[in-house]
Amino acid sequence: MAGNSFGKLFNLTTYGESHGPALGGIIDGCPPGIELDLEAIQNELNRRKPGQSAIVTQRKEPDTVKFHSGIFEGKTTGTSIGFVIENTNQKSHDYTHIKDSYRPSHADYVYDKKYGFRDYRGGGRSSARETACRVVAGAIAKQMLKSIEITAYVSSVGTMKLNKPYTELDLTKAELNIVRCPDETMASKMETYIKEVRSKGDTVGGVVSCVIKNVPVGLGEPVFDKLHAELGKAMLSINAVKGFEYGSGFHGSTMYGSDHNDAFNSDGTTKTNYSGGIQGGISNGMDIYFSVAFKPVATLIQKYKTIDKSGNILEMQGKGRHDPCVVPRAVPIVEAMAALVLADFHLLNKIYS
Amino acid sequence: MAGNSFGKLFNLTTYGESHGPALGGIIDGCPPGIELDLEAIQNELNRRKPGQSAIVTQRKEPDTVKFHSGIFEGKTTGTSIGFVIENTNQKSHDYTHIKDSYRPSHADYVYDKKYGFRDYRGGGRSSARETACRVVAGAIAKQMLKSIEITAYVSSVGTMKLNKPYTELDLTKAELNIVRCPDETMASKMETYIKEVRSKGDTVGGVVSCVIKNVPVGLGEPVFDKLHAELGKAMLSINAVKGFEYGSGFHGSTMYGSDHNDAFNSDGTTKTNYSGGIQGGISNGMDIYFSVAFKPVATLIQKYKTIDKSGNILEMQGKGRHDPCVVPRAVPIVEAMAALVLADFHLLNKIYS
Amino acid sequence: MAGNSFGKLFNLTTYGESHGPALGGIIDGCPPGIELDLEAIQNELNRRKPGQSAIVTQRKEPDTVKFHSGIFEGKTTGTSIGFVIENTNQKSHDYTHIKDSYRPSHADYVYDKKYGFRDYRGGGRSSARETACRVVAGAIAKQMLKSIEITAYVSSVGTMKLNKPYTELDLTKAELNIVRCPDETMASKMETYIKEVRSKGDTVGGVVSCVIKNVPVGLGEPVFDKLHAELGKAMLSINAVKGFEYGSGFHGSTMYGSDHNDAFNSDGTTKTNYSGGIQGGISNGMDIYFSVAFKPVATLIQKYKTIDKSGNILEMQGKGRHDPCVVPRAVPIVEAMAALVLADFHLLNKIYS
Amino acid sequence: MAGNSFGKLFNLTTYGESHGPALGGIIDGCPPGIELDLEAIQNELNRRKPGQSAIVTQRKEPDTVKFHSGIFEGKTTGTSIGFVIENTNQKSHDYTHIKDSYRPSHADYVYDKKYGFRDYRGGGRSSARETACRVVAGAIAKQMLKSIEITAYVSSVGTMKLNKPYTELDLTKAELNIVRCPDETMASKMETYIKEVRSKGDTVGGVVSCVIKNVPVGLGEPVFDKLHAELGKAMLSINAVKGFEYGSGFHGSTMYGSDHNDAFNSDGTTKTNYSGGIQGGISNGMDIYFSVAFKPVATLIQKYKTIDKSGNILEMQGKGRHDPCVVPRAVPIVEAMAALVLADFHLLNKIYS
Repeated sequence: MAGNSFGKLFNLTTYGESHGPALGGIIDGCPPGIELDLEAIQNELNRRKPGQSAIVTQRKEPDTVKFHSGIFEGKTTGTSIGFVIENTNQKSHDYTHIKDSYRPSHADYVYDKKYGFRDYRGGGRSSARETACRVVAGAIAKQMLKSIEITAYVSSVGTMKLNKPYTELDLTKAELNIVRCPDETMASKMETYIKEVRSKGDTVGGVVSCVIKNVPVGLGEPVFDKLHAELGKAMLSINAVKGFEYGSGFHGSTMYGSDHNDAFNSDGTTKTNYSGGIQGGISNGMDIYFSVAFKPVATLIQKYKTIDKSGNILEMQGKGRHDPCVVPRAVPIVEAMAALVLADFHLLNKIYS
Repeated sequence: MAGNSFGKLFNLTTYGESHGPALGGIIDGCPPGIELDLEAIQNELNRRKPGQSAIVTQRKEPDTVKFHSGIFEGKTTGTSIGFVIENTNQKSHDYTHIKDSYRPSHADYVYDKKYGFRDYRGGGRSSARETACRVVAGAIAKQMLKSIEITAYVSSVGTMKLNKPYTELDLTKAELNIVRCPDETMASKMETYIKEVRSKGDTVGGVVSCVIKNVPVGLGEPVFDKLHAELGKAMLSINAVKGFEYGSGFHGSTMYGSDHNDAFNSDGTTKTNYSGGIQGGISNGMDIYFSVAFKPVATLIQKYKTIDKSGNILEMQGKGRHDPCVVPRAVPIVEAMAALVLADFHLLNKIYS
Repeated sequence: MAGNSFGKLFNLTTYGESHGPALGGIIDGCPPGIELDLEAIQNELNRRKPGQSAIVTQRKEPDTVKFHSGIFEGKTTGTSIGFVIENTNQKSHDYTHIKDSYRPSHADYVYDKKYGFRDYRGGGRSSARETACRVVAGAIAKQMLKSIEITAYVSSVGTMKLNKPYTELDLTKAELNIVRCPDETMASKMETYIKEVRSKGDTVGGVVSCVIKNVPVGLGEPVFDKLHAELGKAMLSINAVKGFEYGSGFHGSTMYGSDHNDAFNSDGTTKTNYSGGIQGGISNGMDIYFSVAFKPVATLIQKYKTIDKSGNILEMQGKGRHDPCVVPRAVPIVEAMAALVLADFHLLNKIYS
Repeated sequence: MAGNSFGKLFNLTTYGESHGPALGGIIDGCPPGIELDLEAIQNELNRRKPGQSAIVTQRKEPDTVKFHSGIFEGKTTGTSIGFVIENTNQKSHDYTHIKDSYRPSHADYVYDKKYGFRDYRGGGRSSARETACRVVAGAIAKQMLKSIEITAYVSSVGTMKLNKPYTELDLTKAELNIVRCPDETMASKMETYIKEVRSKGDTVGGVVSCVIKNVPVGLGEPVFDKLHAELGKAMLSINAVKGFEYGSGFHGSTMYGSDHNDAFNSDGTTKTNYSGGIQGGISNGMDIYFSVAFKPVATLIQKYKTIDKSGNILEMQGKGRHDPCVVPRAVPIVEAMAALVLADFHLLNKIYS
């Protein structure tokens, strides 16, 4: 209810502030008997963690996940899976200067107003550090979903946009560069661009796209819990996200029905896929694809003016180790959230069997 | 769980097929003592109903809501509010030709695959007729929310786009024309355009934008149930929606942090509002604004090819009375869903009081 | 959240006051393809309805259920099932005398305090009339559960107690008399007793017992959602219930472990069944049995003293048509609630398949 | 959904097996600004922990709770509270003899059937060790509820029953003896009796009663989520519980309405309290009182026959360190669960403010 849980049948509840002793979570509803590859789970965390490349924050965190329950002899037992990720690199003293002030476009102000006070060390609960727990749960969901393939990649950084549909890309190349853009030439340009932005102490936004293949027909529920509605909520719940579109998306709103309708082949597949693999909120077996817009990170390594609790105007100097562009690290988070949504509907669909 | 409920504390559950005897719903969690203006509720339904103007479907339905419970002496009692909207104009014979075939980009195929069979009369449960119940509940939510003002309007039809921020529009003018676009000149062009599209038996997409004013600070929950994540889910759950963006949206992904950050005034308001009234998932008291992309309606009054259950290719002829462009009728639905989201967070926020 | 919903996967939400135009409900999550015997559903309602025999209230209500959705060509479609039961015999004038006063051991006082005012016609939402909707949903759940047999019966009225374990009773005889006690001799005595109680304008309590046969192993979830915990909640949610026990129950608390443990047969069944068919919250395939204690109905056809809203002491005269003993009519309600609990766990268990 | 969560607004999710590295939980929905007495929380855990007296299991566990989040500068922050209790005394080798066999009246058999396999070390997830997490959350709930006083005590052990209503007892004396019975003479007899039972390697059941004072009027929701229905579920979810009754309970089913009705005083209190402080599912401000029946612990230190996975009959010898009677340690667990139920309704009731 208070917003720290996601999913109905495959349910993740998380806790943890950026500068507390640890983050953690509980996965409730994971079916029994799933053989877990624990190394693969840690690898997903490593894709997200800070300090992994030259274009992300240089803060170092091992982000090692420890499981406390729900796994026995290498398999899930069907009971709740508890896990913990310790915070090892909390420099609380970095943050005392913001105790009584509000950073622009951060959650400082609204937390203080909503809760009466806040854990002002770093972002507290509003820090994107929280997404580490999502990646753990998403990695388990991926292993449960087996043949369903979820691949996210960076499709734009600032105004640099990869103007190719995913069908013309080799998505396996996304992980070969630090930007996580499957087009090498574009990736190289983006990398240079991000470094330039960082050198100015500035940040820039971007877009992560995601493709899901081998989806069975029938995932998603009609009316309020449409598959794309839950995917949308999942993506919009990631820090810094400003928009979501799937299939033809916003461009689809400019089209005629006679162009947009996806004609059937005799096997039930469709000749085009403007629907984005979802019709009436239910997967139709075609590829699901969607895009997620991220705003530029609000923390700048620049001077800026802001206010304190009493409304006094202050001049502040951003410092610390922050991401100039969030999208490379957001790629595994987008995949994780997609996996959580699919896991939930996968389990729910068993009821119809 | 099966997708027919929306909201946690202010909860709506609905039922009804397009061609059954009635639609209906139950609102659970509406607080007691709210004086209801029943005429205002019916007026919201009238804004959505078919046959209201020359550019929407000419099917006639009175769409009269009857309340069965939860209201006594003009006020909500705090118990569940049951309501019913009878279907009076079900021409089931219009639909027998689609019993064994699947209309392209409709939900026919996925319903048959998911459930084993379907109510093939009209769209059954996948029909947008279902949204009438949302409008009833949204109208009650609006009355509970009192001073919060929710105004949606058509901002584009096909490629015709109203290229003005909402702050330069007089939103009260949206209801003065049948397109529900607040710019009269543009509305007139859009109306002509929709009529042209209809004359060809074709359809076209569009965008509905929405502005919410007088929002108190503190609505929304961190992490998974961010205010914009729930708004996004709510909008994406409306039939034909392909995308959602709020605040700076997709455009924000092209910006620099130094431009995008919203500097504070000393009273906690911000000089700009790229955040769209929401920071860290929690309302900051500034206007909330967002846009919702609708695809073109899939039902064309044209010949088209499709398949039957056995995979045979058929030529079909679309007929009946359908909307050439869904956005004018979608305006009250967008408002209703926004009201439901805000009502839920409004109640949840009382816990912090 | 506000208490008008029951069940997670097989979910019932209800509405309706005793003297409003109608009661109704929505079943969300009923799987598709279940062939419904609508007459059997109405028969369950008839078992509960007022006026069915000489020992229950003589108020007449046809209690006819009408389905609005979710059923097509005789089968459930998988979409939400809406239904309505009209109130045809609302004598609102019977109740105006209680508008400003609080009947002892009714919900009048607490409703006024909780909600600020109440629908004072009859019990409003607190009336047991609400249970009609439970019976409808329970009847559908029973049809889904097929081979699972749920049989409730009256095991005591006041101090008259059927001192036989269910294994020594022919439960099919319960429906052959108006008390619904499977022992004819005891049933006859109970009937006479209830008539005596009624002749004095008094009421008396009783116990309904319930046996569930052919339960598969594995229903129920560990920890908080144990099968018997949900059964207990379900029963305790029925009007006038004061206690619940299953298996050895309160008597079991007086036993030694060496007597109470149920030794296994080699096929996994047990030689005794003090466990009541549930171990660790999960069904073990043995018969589930439990008892539910009902207090005497609070409405007496006698003079009594009470208070009005201002705390003035009043003398009131109970009148109207009320049940002298609630347990005969409670039998189908107990069965319905048991069916709802089992239906929910039955669906949830599919996730493990 | 899978049963590891309790509560809607004040929500606890737990994990942990008896012999894994740790137990833990997340409290989501605790309001901000509550000053926590961490020592008082640990004290509640100490009341439950093994090895605390001569009549409970002599297994030693420090049961030290560590908080990971949601608390800052001594106060709750409004974000999720994560906590961990390490298992330090896991003698896994004690349990290898039960790997392939099923102990009578334990959950071994049903876990294997439901999940396909089980963590056979101790009770795994079905161990009452899990209740430690409930006690942590309950202790926080108690601190939130402030003036509401929840006191549980042992009212019977086997056939030894404290035949006095709670109003004739000094409940503060319950904690002065190791049985937790407020009557010293009876406590002494019970202690002797439990020691006798233990000396035979046997176990015995008992009853825990609970009284809640200073409850505001209005807690609880009508229809399905009645206050006593949730209390009943909460209690029945505790390991080994077989029955629950509140107010007049099972005895109330033998009474006449003319005796059972609670006449009002002019201030809204009642002269008697057969209702047990709850009318129509909603607290009326009078004391809430209820009793919870516990079966004898299934683990005996005796020889017994049972079956293995293949259905072969085995003779086993119970060993280890177990409780001869569970009720003394159950007292803080009953209080904790009562606190969780009240906390949830306390928050929900704010919606009506």
